[in-house]
Amino acid sequence: MDRLMQFLQGLGPEIEGRLTKLLPFADQRPESLHEAMRYSVLGGGKRLRPALTLASFLAAGGGSRTAVVDAACAIEFLHAYTLVHDDLPAMDNDAMRRNRLTCHKAFGEGLAILVGDALQALAFETLAAASGDKADRTVVELAKAAGSLGTVGGQALDLEWEGKNQDPEIIERIDRWKTGSLIACCCRMGCIFAGGDGEKYAKLNEYGEAAGVMYQICDDLLDHAETEQDVAKPRGADKEREKQTYPAAIGVEAARELAVKKSAEAKRAIKDFGREALYLRLLADYLLERKN
Amino acid sequence: MDRLMQFLQGLGPEIEGRLTKLLPFADQRPESLHEAMRYSVLGGGKRLRPALTLASFLAAGGGSRTAVVDAACAIEFLHAYTLVHDDLPAMDNDAMRRNRLTCHKAFGEGLAILVGDALQALAFETLAAASGDKADRTVVELAKAAGSLGTVGGQALDLEWEGKNQDPEIIERIDRWKTGSLIACCCRMGCIFAGGDGEKYAKLNEYGEAAGVMYQICDDLLDHAETEQDVAKPRGADKEREKQTYPAAIGVEAARELAVKKSAEAKRAIKDFGREALYLRLLADYLLERKN
Repeated sequence: MDRLMQFLQGLGPEIEGRLTKLLPFADQRPESLHEAMRYSVLGGGKRLRPALTLASFLAAGGGSRTAVVDAACAIEFLHAYTLVHDDLPAMDNDAMRRNRLTCHKAFGEGLAILVGDALQALAFETLAAASGDKADRTVVELAKAAGSLGTVGGQALDLEWEGKNQDPEIIERIDRWKTGSLIACCCRMGCIFAGGDGEKYAKLNEYGEAAGVMYQICDDLLDHAETEQDVAKPRGADKEREKQTYPAAIGVEAARELAVKKSAEAKRAIKDFGREALYLRLLADYLLERKN
Repeated sequence: MDRLMQFLQGLGPEIEGRLTKLLPFADQRPESLHEAMRYSVLGGGKRLRPALTLASFLAAGGGSRTAVVDAACAIEFLHAYTLVHDDLPAMDNDAMRRNRLTCHKAFGEGLAILVGDALQALAFETLAAASGDKADRTVVELAKAAGSLGTVGGQALDLEWEGKNQDPEIIERIDRWKTGSLIACCCRMGCIFAGGDGEKYAKLNEYGEAAGVMYQICDDLLDHAETEQDVAKPRGADKEREKQTYPAAIGVEAARELAVKKSAEAKRAIKDFGREALYLRLLADYLLERKN
């Protein structure tokens, strides 16, 4: 794990630096919108998606980092917008995120909707500008992952199924769309920027899909955790809203087992990759043990 | 004007046909999201932005229509998303649009936010897929026009300045960002798809910026109209919310004169274009006289 920590600690400042530069300045009009955009992105996220993008890039052969770092930031903008919108009163109605007020609590609901909208546009602007003659491919990848058969579709199903009987088939789809699609997109994106071939692309996608579902199960397990120690989000919010989750549907133990299985599935997908896939392998273990 | 009507009536079914096909089917899961997306796009808009995209495409030399028609649909998806979000309670809080319930009134607020989010993603997916090796350029164009220094920025200023003293400098910026940026983007997009040169691009952009501001002034004048006859939107909503508008700031007569001036400015920008810019010239007159 030391190697992984080194990788993440090296990548962190690089990603934060680019995010800071790619965002509009807060003293530029409309100031309140730009301030709220910076607040929502630069609020100390785990930057898991950039890490997966870069780890997949290295696993697929690597190359010059400049463009892929910007692509990773684009995905992080996309992710940040979904959090801002998911937190809204009409959605999950969350007041706190990452130990701070959510965007709409800090800046008002109208502005929070606009922050999400502007971050989505910024995501595509950043990605297209970084992609050069690959932009048709990369933009379609991100747009599909983010659209009605991806992140947004998952959130729609999540809302639609609140308060209903737990249904593992629905949970599987929610996890795959809401979380898995963007995480798998990171892995495919890293592969495209490394110029990886069709087989690598398919394997990295497989890794990403398994890792994405595993990540969501672990998230739901954290919500079920008994103490608030070491966790940045209030406990029990999902239980209270009767969200569809594996821990609620099949129990904490079985959900934990499923997460372990998904982690192994992710690693198996890249078993023929060499040492250059080290960080992806370590991430599959690390994400299983995370505490926030 | 007969020539323009022929152009618009020919284009209408072509655009509706493509919009219908590019949208996800309503019987595809998540059904309610897809139904609401179709409701919001296929609700009988004027399709002004596709018309301007195609008219600019022709003015810049034209060519094969398939790709530019899809690009025009992408811009229409983007526009449709902004309407859905602008109508939300936390924004302009409108119950009716195009003589029907607004999206959140028909489908609920949470789903309406998601409809807008998914339509924005679909806009970029459609545009990138249509653009081939020009995708880096076209996606950056649309993303900038739609972002915090474009449509979203204009809406943020609009909300921020509600109820304050009318300020022509702010109005100019709101109109330019909120409406002008996407309309000018249509004109530049048409030029890019026709392979137009830098000078044509600059002139078409100039046309679009003037036409966009003119269009917004006419919109505000309609809100000030005395009767509800022939208008699809309830009157007086902007006055009631004390929006920043030229009619409120400088009076109906002076605002009307400014719109006429902007129409002339638009036509002047393309004065060196030949007969292939006919529809753009006619549109600059037509939009000045519109009743809805």
